[in-house]
Amino acid sequence: MELSEICKPIQEGLDEVEVRLRSISNVDFLQLSELLDYSLKGTGKRIRPMLTLLAGKFYNYNLDLLLPMATAVEVMHTATLVHDDAIDNSPVRRGRPTVYKLWGTEKAVLLGDYLFAEAGALTATTENIRVIKRFAETLKTISSGELNQAFNAFNLNQSRQEYLERIAKKTASLFSMSTESGAVLSQAPEESIQILIAYAYNLGIAFQIVDDILDFNGTEEELGKPMGSDLAQGTLTLPAMLLLEYYPEDNPVKRLFENRDEVDNIRIAIELVRNSTIIRECYQVASDYCIRACRDLKLLPDTPSRRSLTDLADFITSRNR
Amino acid sequence: MELSEICKPIQEGLDEVEVRLRSISNVDFLQLSELLDYSLKGTGKRIRPMLTLLAGKFYNYNLDLLLPMATAVEVMHTATLVHDDAIDNSPVRRGRPTVYKLWGTEKAVLLGDYLFAEAGALTATTENIRVIKRFAETLKTISSGELNQAFNAFNLNQSRQEYLERIAKKTASLFSMSTESGAVLSQAPEESIQILIAYAYNLGIAFQIVDDILDFNGTEEELGKPMGSDLAQGTLTLPAMLLLEYYPEDNPVKRLFENRDEVDNIRIAIELVRNSTIIRECYQVASDYCIRACRDLKLLPDTPSRRSLTDLADFITSRNR
Repeated sequence: MELSEICKPIQEGLDEVEVRLRSISNVDFLQLSELLDYSLKGTGKRIRPMLTLLAGKFYNYNLDLLLPMATAVEVMHTATLVHDDAIDNSPVRRGRPTVYKLWGTEKAVLLGDYLFAEAGALTATTENIRVIKRFAETLKTISSGELNQAFNAFNLNQSRQEYLERIAKKTASLFSMSTESGAVLSQAPEESIQILIAYAYNLGIAFQIVDDILDFNGTEEELGKPMGSDLAQGTLTLPAMLLLEYYPEDNPVKRLFENRDEVDNIRIAIELVRNSTIIRECYQVASDYCIRACRDLKLLPDTPSRRSLTDLADFITSRNR
Repeated sequence: MELSEICKPIQEGLDEVEVRLRSISNVDFLQLSELLDYSLKGTGKRIRPMLTLLAGKFYNYNLDLLLPMATAVEVMHTATLVHDDAIDNSPVRRGRPTVYKLWGTEKAVLLGDYLFAEAGALTATTENIRVIKRFAETLKTISSGELNQAFNAFNLNQSRQEYLERIAKKTASLFSMSTESGAVLSQAPEESIQILIAYAYNLGIAFQIVDDILDFNGTEEELGKPMGSDLAQGTLTLPAMLLLEYYPEDNPVKRLFENRDEVDNIRIAIELVRNSTIIRECYQVASDYCIRACRDLKLLPDTPSRRSLTDLADFITSRNR
C-alpha cells in the first residue's frame, strides 16, 4: 500500500498543510526566512499531520481548526529534528545536509526554539485549552525522553522496558498528541478520542522500532543518513539489545560502548544483526504494536478514514525509509 | 532603593513563586530533577515575575492565575539563558558554572526545551487564550532577536536603530509579556493593559542597555561573568557603537571584529570606554527609556504597586549586576 493511497480521504487537507508549512517562512527577516524554508521543505512523510487529519475525519471535519493543528504537529516534529541534529552533530538527514551542518549549532538551536514557538502559536489559534495543554505537556515528555536517551548514552545496562518507555516518550507522545488533537477539535466523543490516542501511541512505538531496525537494516540511500548512527551516538535500541542478549560475552556493541572504538565495531554489529533472526524478531515486536494499535479501531464509525488508519499501520511495518 | 523595598506590595506572591519554581524539579527522573533544581535555583533578581505580580496588583489580584503566570515568565527567561550559554559556550553566569559547562551542550539544549515547555504548560493553566497566544508570539520574537544577533556577529555595519530593534526583541518583548499577562489576568481595562505593556517595553530596553553597559563598566565579581563577553561574541552593543563613532579609524572594536584578535583589543576597548563619556551617555539613553516607561503610569490607580513600578525604573538604571 502506497502512502498516497492511504492519504486519499484527506489529500486536500494535506496539500493545504504543505501550503501553510511553506507560508511560515514568509517573515520579514531574510536569513530566518531561508532557515525556515530549508527546514520545512517537503521531504518528510508528513505522518503526524496525516494522523491529525485522519483522526479529525470521523466527526466534525472542521478544517479551520484542523489545518493549523496538523501544521503545528509537523512544525513541532521539525523543531525536534533540528535540535537533535545539532546535538548529535549529524551532517545529513533525509539525504540533505542538516541545518546544523550548513548553519552551525547556534543557528540550529535558535531555529528550533523559533519552530517550537511557531508550533505553539499555531496550536493556540485553535483556542482549545485541552489541545493547548496537551501540546505543552507533549513537549515536556519529548524533551524528557531525549534527556533520558542522552543520560543513558553508552550505558549497556538498560532493560527492554526502559527502551520502550523512552521511545514512548520521544516518539509515541507526539503521535498520540496528533490524533488526540484531531479528535478533540472535531468534537469526537471521549470514547473515540481515547481509541484514537491508544491507536497512535502504539503506532508511534511501532514506528520508532522500525526506525531503529532501519538503522541496521536499511541502505544509506533509503535512509538518507549513515547506517549505524544510533550506535555511533551510544543509543541502545532494540536490535542492539537483542544482539547483546545473543552474544553476552564477545560483542561488538559491548566493545563499542566500553571502548568507544567505532569503526570496526559498528560494521561488525550491523553484519551480525543482519545475519541473525534479530531483524525478524524486531519486526515482530513492531507488528505486535501495530496489531494492538488497530485493535479498537472497529469501534469507530466505518469510514474511509478508518480504513486508512489500518493501512497506515501496515505501511509503518513495511516502510524502508 | 533596594529591590526588597520595591517588592513589598507583592512579597508574599514572590515568595510563593520561589516555592513553585523549586517544585518544578519534583520529577520522577533523577538527572532531570538535578538539572531543573540547578537551573531554577534562586540566584536571579526575579524581575519578570515582579512585573507580572505588580501589573496584576491594580485590579483583581487573583493569585490562582497570577502565580502560575509569574512562575512561567521566570521559567521562560531561564530557558533562554540556558540556551544562550550553550550557544555562546559560556562557562559562568551569576558567579556559578553554567549548565552548559557542567553538563555539556546536549543536556543544555534539551533542558532549555523542557523549560520552554514547562513555561508553556504553566501559561496554559491560566486558560486565558490571549495570554497563551502572547506567550507563543513572544518566544518567536525572542528567538528571532537572538537569531538576528547571531547573524550579525562581528558585523561592524549596524545602526543604532538596528541595535534597539534587536534588544526590543530579545529583552523588551518578555518584559512586556510579563506585565501584559499580569494585567490581563487581573481583568485590567484595555487602556491600563496598554499602559503596562508600554511601561515594560521601555523598561526592558533600558534594562538591556544597562546590561550592555555593565559588560564594559562592571566588575567580574558583580557581574558573575567575565567582562567584555559581548565583544568576545562579536555582539555590537551601544557602548561599542559609540566607541566606533568616536574613533572611526584606529579602533580596537574594529580590529577585533575584522581580525578576531581578542585578548588585547577587548582590554583596550574596555579601557577606552571607561575613560570616555560613553558610559554616561549610555546611562542617559537608558534613563530616557525609563522616563518614557513611567510617563503614563500616572493614569493608573494610585497604589503602592504603582509606586513600585516607578522605583523599579530607578533601580534598573542604578543597578550594578
